[in-house]
Amino acid sequence: MQWEKNQFGGVVIEPESLSLDDKSFYSVLKNNIDTWKYDSVKLVWLQINKEFYSKIQIASQFGFLMHHASHNYVMMTLAIEIDTFIPPYSTHYIGVGGVVVNDLNEILVVSEKYRSSANPSYKLPGGALVQGEHISQAAVREVFEETGISTEFKKLSFFRHWHGYRYGKSDIYFVVLLKPLNHEIIKQEEEIAECVWMDVDKFLNDPDIHDFNKHIVRSALNSNGLHITNIPGYGSEKMFEFFTS
Amino acid sequence: MQWEKNQFGGVVIEPESLSLDDKSFYSVLKNNIDTWKYDSVKLVWLQINKEFYSKIQIASQFGFLMHHASHNYVMMTLAIEIDTFIPPYSTHYIGVGGVVVNDLNEILVVSEKYRSSANPSYKLPGGALVQGEHISQAAVREVFEETGISTEFKKLSFFRHWHGYRYGKSDIYFVVLLKPLNHEIIKQEEEIAECVWMDVDKFLNDPDIHDFNKHIVRSALNSNGLHITNIPGYGSEKMFEFFTS
Repeated sequence: MQWEKNQFGGVVIEPESLSLDDKSFYSVLKNNIDTWKYDSVKLVWLQINKEFYSKIQIASQFGFLMHHASHNYVMMTLAIEIDTFIPPYSTHYIGVGGVVVNDLNEILVVSEKYRSSANPSYKLPGGALVQGEHISQAAVREVFEETGISTEFKKLSFFRHWHGYRYGKSDIYFVVLLKPLNHEIIKQEEEIAECVWMDVDKFLNDPDIHDFNKHIVRSALNSNGLHITNIPGYGSEKMFEFFTS
Repeated sequence: MQWEKNQFGGVVIEPESLSLDDKSFYSVLKNNIDTWKYDSVKLVWLQINKEFYSKIQIASQFGFLMHHASHNYVMMTLAIEIDTFIPPYSTHYIGVGGVVVNDLNEILVVSEKYRSSANPSYKLPGGALVQGEHISQAAVREVFEETGISTEFKKLSFFRHWHGYRYGKSDIYFVVLLKPLNHEIIKQEEEIAECVWMDVDKFLNDPDIHDFNKHIVRSALNSNGLHITNIPGYGSEKMFEFFTS
């Protein structure tokens, strides 16, 4: 088993060096933990790839906890110094909703097939960001997928920050104003029950539409919001997206 | 082993029902997978708690992949229907920086002890959100921890969306304007090399300060931004935070 110290007083075990039998792993890990304690190491990082999953229960016996996991590996940590800071894994989901209003003062709204309430309630088209996708791109993609309407990003006017979404993580739902580039709706059959252009004033006065949805539409129509900007020399446009007031 | 169907055509295995020996688990899982295939189940969810980690390698042999993990469990999934949608785990980290300007037109800036470049470069105080914390609270907390200055949230004026942060996840860095409530700096010794009140015009014209930092300070000082709002009847203020234009 090989490992290296990192700049934060921690130790990182080399994932490829776990190719020893479980019994040897147990005794090598035990000895190393004694060494690390003696050396005042703060934190140990142990990535266990799929081929070495039998080592997980052994590491767990020594007090290693799950830090995160993805597809074909788990990352475990052992805090040797009590209360040492462990950089957390990602904490949030990101979603986006599009306020799409045409020249006839109509807003594009959908009702979902799978919903918790019995009454159909109109809401904005939108959905979750795919990992690596810009917010503006996700809005345009989701609106197109759900409604067949192509759009152009104008501004970001609102967001909701919500704790206690899936698996104890939080969620941010951004609302953006989009300009429609075509009129004919082609709704997505799988998830969308109904998709219509609805008069904006009717939407804002409909008692069946939630105050939250009215609020976010008003914010998109009546204010400046944040606009996409560019900061020269900062990095690839694929990697960075900037919103400014 | 017990399991239930969910509303999305999937199956959820009961975590407490894994208390059988590894050999039995292997054969029971094998038989169940045959049943699920026959029943056109789309996706199988398998949460394995710490006491049953020896089952991970067995599930992996049948094609289960890691969905996520935290402290004392891993969640694995098996897509029985090819290309079935698997709701992703959290995708983002959230950080916040505070633009704190006093009545003398001075801005509160820090330089970090641990930095990649040799030159000290002044930047905004700030840091990462703790899970469950509001953005406005995190800004006030981080500024206080790093500088000893108590502040009051005024508005959110800018954010940077960045892909390719730790472990393939993305990051959003929000910039907020804060009003200082005291003047005397008590800097955090561990991470902060220097903390000073700096003339805003000097900051904006200093060639050693990055254009990005100048841009975000300008955005906070010269614009409307997004303000915190309240949507009556929506839910607990501890769970929700709303920003509107």
